[in-house]
Amino acid sequence: MAGNHFGKLFTITTFGESHGIAIGGVVDGCPPGLEISEADLQTDLDRRKPGTSRYTTARREADEVKILSGVFEGKTTGTSIGLLIENTDQRSKDYSKIKDIFRPGHADYTYQQKYGLRDYRGGGRSSARETAIRVAAGAIAKKYLKDRLGIEIHGYLSQLGPIELAAKDLSIVNDNPFFCADAAKLDELDAYMRELKKTGDSIGAKVSVRASAVPVGLGEPVFDRLDADIAHAMMGINAVKGVEIGDGFAVVNQKGSEHRDAMTPRGFKSNRSGGVLGGISSGQDIVAHLALKPTSSISVPGESVDIHGHSAEVVTKGRHDPCVGIRAVPIAEAMLALVLMDHFLRHRGQNADVSSPTPVLPASD
Amino acid sequence: MAGNHFGKLFTITTFGESHGIAIGGVVDGCPPGLEISEADLQTDLDRRKPGTSRYTTARREADEVKILSGVFEGKTTGTSIGLLIENTDQRSKDYSKIKDIFRPGHADYTYQQKYGLRDYRGGGRSSARETAIRVAAGAIAKKYLKDRLGIEIHGYLSQLGPIELAAKDLSIVNDNPFFCADAAKLDELDAYMRELKKTGDSIGAKVSVRASAVPVGLGEPVFDRLDADIAHAMMGINAVKGVEIGDGFAVVNQKGSEHRDAMTPRGFKSNRSGGVLGGISSGQDIVAHLALKPTSSISVPGESVDIHGHSAEVVTKGRHDPCVGIRAVPIAEAMLALVLMDHFLRHRGQNADVSSPTPVLPASD
Amino acid sequence: MAGNHFGKLFTITTFGESHGIAIGGVVDGCPPGLEISEADLQTDLDRRKPGTSRYTTARREADEVKILSGVFEGKTTGTSIGLLIENTDQRSKDYSKIKDIFRPGHADYTYQQKYGLRDYRGGGRSSARETAIRVAAGAIAKKYLKDRLGIEIHGYLSQLGPIELAAKDLSIVNDNPFFCADAAKLDELDAYMRELKKTGDSIGAKVSVRASAVPVGLGEPVFDRLDADIAHAMMGINAVKGVEIGDGFAVVNQKGSEHRDAMTPRGFKSNRSGGVLGGISSGQDIVAHLALKPTSSISVPGESVDIHGHSAEVVTKGRHDPCVGIRAVPIAEAMLALVLMDHFLRHRGQNADVSSPTPVLPASD
Amino acid sequence: MAGNHFGKLFTITTFGESHGIAIGGVVDGCPPGLEISEADLQTDLDRRKPGTSRYTTARREADEVKILSGVFEGKTTGTSIGLLIENTDQRSKDYSKIKDIFRPGHADYTYQQKYGLRDYRGGGRSSARETAIRVAAGAIAKKYLKDRLGIEIHGYLSQLGPIELAAKDLSIVNDNPFFCADAAKLDELDAYMRELKKTGDSIGAKVSVRASAVPVGLGEPVFDRLDADIAHAMMGINAVKGVEIGDGFAVVNQKGSEHRDAMTPRGFKSNRSGGVLGGISSGQDIVAHLALKPTSSISVPGESVDIHGHSAEVVTKGRHDPCVGIRAVPIAEAMLALVLMDHFLRHRGQNADVSSPTPVLPASD
Repeated sequence: MAGNHFGKLFTITTFGESHGIAIGGVVDGCPPGLEISEADLQTDLDRRKPGTSRYTTARREADEVKILSGVFEGKTTGTSIGLLIENTDQRSKDYSKIKDIFRPGHADYTYQQKYGLRDYRGGGRSSARETAIRVAAGAIAKKYLKDRLGIEIHGYLSQLGPIELAAKDLSIVNDNPFFCADAAKLDELDAYMRELKKTGDSIGAKVSVRASAVPVGLGEPVFDRLDADIAHAMMGINAVKGVEIGDGFAVVNQKGSEHRDAMTPRGFKSNRSGGVLGGISSGQDIVAHLALKPTSSISVPGESVDIHGHSAEVVTKGRHDPCVGIRAVPIAEAMLALVLMDHFLRHRGQNADVSSPTPVLPASD
Repeated sequence: MAGNHFGKLFTITTFGESHGIAIGGVVDGCPPGLEISEADLQTDLDRRKPGTSRYTTARREADEVKILSGVFEGKTTGTSIGLLIENTDQRSKDYSKIKDIFRPGHADYTYQQKYGLRDYRGGGRSSARETAIRVAAGAIAKKYLKDRLGIEIHGYLSQLGPIELAAKDLSIVNDNPFFCADAAKLDELDAYMRELKKTGDSIGAKVSVRASAVPVGLGEPVFDRLDADIAHAMMGINAVKGVEIGDGFAVVNQKGSEHRDAMTPRGFKSNRSGGVLGGISSGQDIVAHLALKPTSSISVPGESVDIHGHSAEVVTKGRHDPCVGIRAVPIAEAMLALVLMDHFLRHRGQNADVSSPTPVLPASD
Repeated sequence: MAGNHFGKLFTITTFGESHGIAIGGVVDGCPPGLEISEADLQTDLDRRKPGTSRYTTARREADEVKILSGVFEGKTTGTSIGLLIENTDQRSKDYSKIKDIFRPGHADYTYQQKYGLRDYRGGGRSSARETAIRVAAGAIAKKYLKDRLGIEIHGYLSQLGPIELAAKDLSIVNDNPFFCADAAKLDELDAYMRELKKTGDSIGAKVSVRASAVPVGLGEPVFDRLDADIAHAMMGINAVKGVEIGDGFAVVNQKGSEHRDAMTPRGFKSNRSGGVLGGISSGQDIVAHLALKPTSSISVPGESVDIHGHSAEVVTKGRHDPCVGIRAVPIAEAMLALVLMDHFLRHRGQNADVSSPTPVLPASD
Repeated sequence: MAGNHFGKLFTITTFGESHGIAIGGVVDGCPPGLEISEADLQTDLDRRKPGTSRYTTARREADEVKILSGVFEGKTTGTSIGLLIENTDQRSKDYSKIKDIFRPGHADYTYQQKYGLRDYRGGGRSSARETAIRVAAGAIAKKYLKDRLGIEIHGYLSQLGPIELAAKDLSIVNDNPFFCADAAKLDELDAYMRELKKTGDSIGAKVSVRASAVPVGLGEPVFDRLDADIAHAMMGINAVKGVEIGDGFAVVNQKGSEHRDAMTPRGFKSNRSGGVLGGISSGQDIVAHLALKPTSSISVPGESVDIHGHSAEVVTKGRHDPCVGIRAVPIAEAMLALVLMDHFLRHRGQNADVSSPTPVLPASD
């Protein structure tokens, strides 16, 4: 209940601080018999890890994950899976300057007030470093979803500052440092980021993620709707300030006749709903969008206070991402995988004896 | 886990269908000693209930709530509170036409596929009728938050189709049928709705909700962040397709120097974060926005299929709201109250012995 | 979390006080398509209800249960099931004498201290009246277990004070007021109870319950072992002070060579383990025993204090069971059904794709 | 939900197999500001660890625990605490003989049936090795309970086979290899165990545990009663087959006039209830007893089957405890500490604003 636990049947519990000894977690509820190896997890970890391009922080972390339990002779045993990533790049730097100052836009102030003390080194538990374990756990869920159900999950950057990016070709997403699916925009992105870096400032971003081949029926109304749990998962990613399912905020100015996705014997004719009706997956692609704020760790001076309530100026000199949204792509994929995996098991637990699971409509989209 | 349960320490579990005998629920975890009566709950229920204006469905429900337990001599006892609302307006109508047809944009198809059968009368469990119990439970949370902590929660309609509505005067929200805080726009809203009704169509809406005087420290990172739980609660309301905290999707095109809320000895200078930093309340107003889709229950004919997969035309003749977003205002308030109440108890459970709960910064906004 | 919620996938949440308007609950997670009616629940409620014999309290309650939701056209829909039993026999008696006195051996003192106030009428929430809803919910679980899995659950009185009762013939359990399976002991029981009643005292009891045809594999190590969850369920019944699985406390003086149940190609040769190995069901009968204390509500005067800490004498004149253990038989059956149902769904959720669910050993015992 | 998670507000999630790389866990919900070090945890780990006396297994494990997170500058931060113990004594032995055979009385058969495969090395996840992490987590809870609330928890061996052991002097428990509080019986125990070892057999045991200075009010009726949660915790310890609170099974033959603990202005006159009334702590000592079965890993040949259902003889040649009950003493203490800690936080969360927490009665016993 203290917040470091996610999921109901397929669960993950995480620990670890930015500059501590290690980060880690426990995946509980993975069905037995899944073929899995550390290499399967490393692929996504490498996509998220820092230091891979000029657009991300220069901090270098190998992010090598170890599976400590729950896998035997290459297969999951159905027992809990221990995951561990040692922190290697913990520069022994001088924190005396920042330990008494609250960086604006960060969790320094709220952690200090909530807990009465805080690990001020690199943000401690509030650092996005913690998300590496989510990515590792998500990779296990992804593998199950793909191997057993054929579900594929793809994320991409859909906007960076003013630059909108279309989902033109998801196959190129992993070939460029922006997770961009819009090849024609790559030069513009590069130019924008170079210019931004000169100013010492940062920029927000929009990330999109979709899952295909999701079976009809996942989601538990009325509170644990599939979309509600996706919103919970996505808003729980560092820096996220908005979540949309399907058409999202565009529905505010849509008519009912325009919004409702028509159904035909050949399937749905559109997917404005984003694959969820009444909180339950419809068999269409699940589509979600996330708004990520610009990081507050910038070299532009900022107005703040210290722990005594006195004025203080903050300038971040450290190694930070000018656009934290970019690296959120594999994290968003991981969280969607965790939600789908959890709901698949929950649905199967309650409804496995439903007589005709064959969908009336063919999958579409 | 089957989805009809919400919260961790302050919880609600609900039941009931649109055209069943009754709807009800159990509030568990309410602190003892709170003065509460059925009248306290009825106020918000009356704000949500149908049939109160020409802009909402003509279905008439008294929505009279009974408290069956957990309150003794006018005060909560700390034990579970049973709530019951009988359904009075269950017109015995002929459902033979719709029982085999999936209304597009509704949960008919997904419920049928998930469960293998469904209560087709008026949407059954997927009907928004169920939210009446959330409103009743939320009223208990609201009362505690206000009486004990001084927290006030206010919702309002911030957009209806193309008409944007400012939060000019929250004191007028309950005096007009739109929950509108922008007096100058009331005529425009009325004209728009009259025109819409003629076409038999429906329209989307945006609802905003804010909580003031929230103490610093509520929210449990990393997964049960306050904003993540608000997103879960809001996306779990019928018809919601998007949730924003603070500046929401506007952050995508904000610079870090622009977004981060400066801190001064007199408090924060802005509230772009919406009152949450690192998943924990900052002492500023909590601000959330919701996008609600237009209802699919309209008299404009729609293309669909029946349970055998054959083409079918759907025309809804029933009593439905042309803009379901309007009545979502008290529901959004209730859900925010439930989340804050739950997090207050969770925070107090884990952190009550933190030595200095006095915030460094004065409350601002 | 406040304690009125039970189970993980098949859950029950209850409310209601001894002398309030009604008691009720919500069953969530019942698979869809189960044929169920109020009559199915009433059978077990009638077995538990007071006033049926001279050996139980004279309080008369019809204990008529209403199903308010979740069942449509005679079948469960997969949505939450609302249950309600109105309290009919709430004699408007004068509570002024007992409201300020703590009855020894009861929850009066602990409720008052925990909550700062209490509903003192008939024990309020701490009354065993609350268990009626558990019995109703358990009847739903029982029906599913029997209809779909062939599991049968039988409880019986195995000791009353000094009189030990063998499990000679479970078919007679419902034909005598003691739930006794040992016909030869019925007269002795009757004589003992008549004598006891004269003294105004009460007596403890031991209740046993067993489930047959339980599939191998139910239970989730390491904490939610099947036996651990059974212990939780049974110790949560009013007046229970001890729980045993299989040989229970007799194992303290057993040798390993004597205790371990030998396995042969024709099945297990004994069932000292009570059907659970390593926290997982073995396919043998699940066997549990409960120790129930004698009620403290007796007409023998007792030493106590009032809410001001002053000495007070307590004499209970009300209508109470001289042996509360007797009526615990259907309650223990219900709780075992709830645990098995929950674990069946949890197991199916996580392990439904295990390739060979056929047990190596034939069911035995 | 998959079973490796314990608690609601103060939680522990564990992982690890007997012969894997490491065992570990995550403690979530520990209040901030608690002074804790690895040495505090090591004390209890050393009490539990194997190889310390001739009466326990000869397997040698350093059982050195590492705290990986959640503690900063010697104090807990309120974030999750990662714990890790590397397995050092993993003799690379030949498992080919046992991998296809089900040891009777063990979890081999049930794990294989539940999961379709299993880690057969030393029992894998079903090994009691896993309890080392419970002991480490329990040590954190114990420290909080003692430092902040003055609660002390003491376990001892109360019976070994036929030898009953009184709680004469708890101060000597850690000075003898039996955790025995009855000095006069030490020679008899030694003689019994020497004789037992010659036969290659094993013996059951009874362990008792008590907590003193527990405040009135802990426990959440009706399902999460304090005694119900203690029963869950204790029955979840390997080899436990019975749990008693207070007088336990002796209540079966007690009269109400004899059982109820009289209350006087100077406190309770007895503690037959074991410190729990109506599921809530009464301020008296919490008293629980556990029955532990004899291990089935003995050198006496046993009858069993292999994974193909064919007859097989099993003889355990490994390093095993002739009485596993002895080492359960620190485990039972740890589990009681975890339950009390969890309930303290839950109670505080819901009831911190109860006006008069001062108990009417002075603590007694």
